[in-house]
Amino acid sequence: MKKIILFILIINLTGPLAFAQKAIADKYDLMPWPKEIRENQSKFVIDSNLTISIHPENSERVHHGAVQFLRRLTDRTGVFLNEGFPVKNKKGSIQIHFDEISKLNIQNDESYTLEVSNATIHIKAKTDVGALRGLATLLQLTAHNASEYFFQGVKITDAPRFVWRGLMIDVSRHFHSVEVLKRNLDAMASVKMNVFHWHLTDDQGIRFESKTYPKLTELASDGLFYTHEQIKDVVAYAGRLGIRVIPEIDVPGHATAFLTAYPELGSKDDYTYSIERFSGVFDPTLNPTKDITYTFLENLFKEITPLFPDDYFHIGGDENEGKHWDENEEIQKFKQKHNLKTNHDLQTYFNVKLEKILNKLGKRLMGWDEIMTPDMPTTAVIHAWRGENEGLTKGGALIEAAKQGYQTVLSNGYYIDRMQSIAYHYGVDPIGDVKLTKQERANVLGGEATMWSELTTSVTIDSRIWPRTAAIAERFWSPKSVNDLDNMKKRLETVSVNLEELGITHIKNQAVILRSMTNNQDISSLLTLTKICEPLKIYARNEDGIEYKTYSSFNLFADACIADAADAYGFNKAVSNFVKDSKKYSNTVLEYLKPWSQNYQAFSQLEKNPKINALEPLSKNVAEVSKLLLEAIQTKNITAKNLQTLKNTIELLKAPVVDVEVALIDALNDLSHYCESNYLKK
Amino acid sequence: MKKIILFILIINLTGPLAFAQKAIADKYDLMPWPKEIRENQSKFVIDSNLTISIHPENSERVHHGAVQFLRRLTDRTGVFLNEGFPVKNKKGSIQIHFDEISKLNIQNDESYTLEVSNATIHIKAKTDVGALRGLATLLQLTAHNASEYFFQGVKITDAPRFVWRGLMIDVSRHFHSVEVLKRNLDAMASVKMNVFHWHLTDDQGIRFESKTYPKLTELASDGLFYTHEQIKDVVAYAGRLGIRVIPEIDVPGHATAFLTAYPELGSKDDYTYSIERFSGVFDPTLNPTKDITYTFLENLFKEITPLFPDDYFHIGGDENEGKHWDENEEIQKFKQKHNLKTNHDLQTYFNVKLEKILNKLGKRLMGWDEIMTPDMPTTAVIHAWRGENEGLTKGGALIEAAKQGYQTVLSNGYYIDRMQSIAYHYGVDPIGDVKLTKQERANVLGGEATMWSELTTSVTIDSRIWPRTAAIAERFWSPKSVNDLDNMKKRLETVSVNLEELGITHIKNQAVILRSMTNNQDISSLLTLTKICEPLKIYARNEDGIEYKTYSSFNLFADACIADAADAYGFNKAVSNFVKDSKKYSNTVLEYLKPWSQNYQAFSQLEKNPKINALEPLSKNVAEVSKLLLEAIQTKNITAKNLQTLKNTIELLKAPVVDVEVALIDALNDLSHYCESNYLKK
Repeated sequence: MKKIILFILIINLTGPLAFAQKAIADKYDLMPWPKEIRENQSKFVIDSNLTISIHPENSERVHHGAVQFLRRLTDRTGVFLNEGFPVKNKKGSIQIHFDEISKLNIQNDESYTLEVSNATIHIKAKTDVGALRGLATLLQLTAHNASEYFFQGVKITDAPRFVWRGLMIDVSRHFHSVEVLKRNLDAMASVKMNVFHWHLTDDQGIRFESKTYPKLTELASDGLFYTHEQIKDVVAYAGRLGIRVIPEIDVPGHATAFLTAYPELGSKDDYTYSIERFSGVFDPTLNPTKDITYTFLENLFKEITPLFPDDYFHIGGDENEGKHWDENEEIQKFKQKHNLKTNHDLQTYFNVKLEKILNKLGKRLMGWDEIMTPDMPTTAVIHAWRGENEGLTKGGALIEAAKQGYQTVLSNGYYIDRMQSIAYHYGVDPIGDVKLTKQERANVLGGEATMWSELTTSVTIDSRIWPRTAAIAERFWSPKSVNDLDNMKKRLETVSVNLEELGITHIKNQAVILRSMTNNQDISSLLTLTKICEPLKIYARNEDGIEYKTYSSFNLFADACIADAADAYGFNKAVSNFVKDSKKYSNTVLEYLKPWSQNYQAFSQLEKNPKINALEPLSKNVAEVSKLLLEAIQTKNITAKNLQTLKNTIELLKAPVVDVEVALIDALNDLSHYCESNYLKK
Repeated sequence: MKKIILFILIINLTGPLAFAQKAIADKYDLMPWPKEIRENQSKFVIDSNLTISIHPENSERVHHGAVQFLRRLTDRTGVFLNEGFPVKNKKGSIQIHFDEISKLNIQNDESYTLEVSNATIHIKAKTDVGALRGLATLLQLTAHNASEYFFQGVKITDAPRFVWRGLMIDVSRHFHSVEVLKRNLDAMASVKMNVFHWHLTDDQGIRFESKTYPKLTELASDGLFYTHEQIKDVVAYAGRLGIRVIPEIDVPGHATAFLTAYPELGSKDDYTYSIERFSGVFDPTLNPTKDITYTFLENLFKEITPLFPDDYFHIGGDENEGKHWDENEEIQKFKQKHNLKTNHDLQTYFNVKLEKILNKLGKRLMGWDEIMTPDMPTTAVIHAWRGENEGLTKGGALIEAAKQGYQTVLSNGYYIDRMQSIAYHYGVDPIGDVKLTKQERANVLGGEATMWSELTTSVTIDSRIWPRTAAIAERFWSPKSVNDLDNMKKRLETVSVNLEELGITHIKNQAVILRSMTNNQDISSLLTLTKICEPLKIYARNEDGIEYKTYSSFNLFADACIADAADAYGFNKAVSNFVKDSKKYSNTVLEYLKPWSQNYQAFSQLEKNPKINALEPLSKNVAEVSKLLLEAIQTKNITAKNLQTLKNTIELLKAPVVDVEVALIDALNDLSHYCESNYLKK
């Protein structure tokens, strides 16, 4: 009899069955975790005879996906395949069936089944995009023993929880080339994400070529923009992966770059606009009372919308504080005349006009949640981003929008540029425990991770997005009950290294930065520090937006660090175990402390330069704290003097240095308290 | 008084002056080494006030180059600049002057002077490309002490030895994306190379979009090709860097992909052509006796040539063995009729017709040295590639061509895909000691490194090109007398890490391959092996071209290894010193042997898979040999039994495993002999 096991039941079960289910979750590093997985006794061995056939053969998506699958499988296993392309008119050992070519809209069916038996693998789906999702799962199933690579026998039945599983990339604050986007699209597809939201304009630059308004390109891009051909190329590339592309033209605020090129559209006549080099919320705003503003946007949208086949079109609409509107007498008069009481009303007036323009062009307007005002038609789509940080409730705008009848997408809680832990993001559920009617639930399309790039260049962007976004992708795809943090972290390790197959640079560029910092010296002592340091969080780096300009260096120690320092999670866990059972866990804690205590010695041997010098106190204090704790735990003894030094040094470590924080402070304090309570001779 | 020192004199001098000159060569990691460098007592400190001005301001090249310079300088130093772009209408602390915009042809003047004083830096050049070359040198001058970054005071007067300093990249055997090409163009410019030779067609694929002959794209590219827009983009990108782009359409041989799309152009009527998946020299050849062949090529050239503004156009012409011509009766008749005695004559007939077509299009024909037949007009350009490996003399074709009045370019000796040492390539001089007349010397335009990509994918291509090609670039730019190998190796270390600033992946992708191989285990034991192993050389990997297909894996241990294994040069040198003076050098040798002797232990701890298993004997034998030598040297004693084991194990190490060779064999044998002579008790 086959074992029949549903992962989704795990958390509610105990006893032997739960054990088997836990085993299955430990065994397969799938992400997002599928809806249902059942093991069978088969094993499909990967050898040179492996072939893929596709029925029908008319999907460019599946053909391309199958070729990529074969390349990645070959590279991963070293097995040289006889057939490097799908076999035509015969049955492959991997057989893919689908019913129809997807139109790639929000009605798209992405469900699939995948069945691995000894000699054959079947992937079946309603659409070709569903088939791609099945192929992505199959690749994640690749396993090995000492002598062979294989796929374990399973039957997987899978479908997404949400239809909108997106990643937004801001290409304005820092530009990211087509290649950066393509590799991130590949990575998205590998974890079954299906929306790329392309934030194309902001105060810092307009990133698409305009033939209608060439000054946008000449004066507002610094030469960093996508040609029409490049945009088509990216959209086609995404489409092949089953990813929709939503462009964003952010208006009426965030408009400095627009107004640098066309100041006549601005809300101030006597103002000199120039491309913004700092970060933040700025005053330059389109003038919503002038006809030329709408002529401009209509012509621009007419030029741009044919490049983006998707139904949805994002107009931004966020963070307009209306300062320049308040300062313009004509605009004040206009408000009175049209009975627009507040700037919100004026912006709604603007938004409604934009919606009509977009509707004529066959597009549906989407905007950040500020657009959700009483007069805004429910045909608009609300992108919920504000939350506790902005004085609102967490995810509140999403629920509000869904209840009011708007389609809505959540980004609050998924701002990956804020450098919060993946544990935090993974814990954010779009709906949570809120009770919604069927229609309200249907209004919740899904969510988007947002990669704002004020502090991110093409060298570091992958390390800000990955592997974390894979866990967010799981939140959007998998059943809500899939939420075991330890298990997710374990699977994420495998996902992370597999992302390198797609050229994702999140791991490898860390060493690049450190080699540059050290002028090609041994980087191991700095690598040790990156494993316990994290970039300052929630915009504490570059507070007020004036330390870094867009052209400042992001090739610093903080840029080599990531939001989830590699050793922090394990150490913090070890310490929380240790304070409960010091005997059992002291070795685990000591294993962390030992190399840290010796690291300053290695660091000291580096030939110094200003960048390395800046790390001196951090490096020294980490070693000092580790040494004192090591000695106390090993000897079960600490002197009052050492305890004081320990406390003082932890205090020193609390202060941010070179825009990073040590991700161990709470655990170090816990250890310090433990030493004080248990090891201090009074 | 200023010290006045010319590096070019170094090798002929002894005594204190020579010492000072040696010091200057040790101090600056410039590559290519300039014609003349004089130190002064100044020091220009790099701080946030650094600015660049350009006179005149009309060069897109210099503007772009200056912006890139500022970005790289900021990233390298961490100094946040106030001005991120060249300052207009005022004098910068770095002042660039040039007289004219270069037309970017072989008459181009790339000379420049660079003078660093305390507060100001002057770069002066005849052309804007010369100014770029000066900026590249200035960036290489970046220095630091513990507290600041600076440029040391120098005056450099520089100009290239050869006008043609090229890199060829084969994009047919494996396709390389626009981004791969762009980063390699950046790298080329950083070492002052000025020709990118784009090998666009071969048996394995046609890599440009053809609108005239769309089947080339549909049937002969596997979907991997450049659009016209992408080609224009690459050419413009190269042009901004002062790099000319020479396309190659390889005919009449290497034509399998052409004939897959248009079999009617082939020399065999009853032949089924299909894109070649193996490597080697194949039979499919265009039919030079048919008018449609010339119509086809003329139309194709008409379509393609406008994309490439350069005067030169490469038609390949190599490795046509004429087998299909011999097998075609019509072609035999045609030869008789036109009094063409040999297939060489027939090919010359073909080439001459092509030259006329190209001349009409304003292009000058260039081809591999097989085109140099008695009837070939001297307006053709001879690309000398054959040498000792092909039964000719080394570089002989170049000298022959120059003497016969052809312009000529050397690649023999610069085949970087052959995985020979950089010491070898650096030692190849285009002219050597041959005496040439002034006109003959003028015919020698320069040289090209050739990156054939049968065994190279986009993951590994950078590690096959860099940093080695920087040393070849020096051979083409610097005075012939700049040829100190140790000094070059030292400078190359710095060039290597600086290439990472441009996104070159030669260092970082090594770890990517090893992480993939080990399924994300600790890679340090494998890294140790990569430092002593080199991929099999001179096509011994993939002998006869039938082990690897184009879609086989190149993500193997051999692909993580490079042509100059990191520890080999140092170890071999240490051993050659040791056998002369064992007392003085034994520690140096032991420092190498110790980690190698322990490495198998670390290797053994890896969880095994087929890829790791394949390395088992190599890893074990290296440790065994190292352990035996270590013990013998430390105790000054070796037993007969151990000596025999040592010899046997070295013998085992000689046999290639997983397509690599251990780069220490000669040194190990030397040590073994030394032990036998000195430590064996008889």
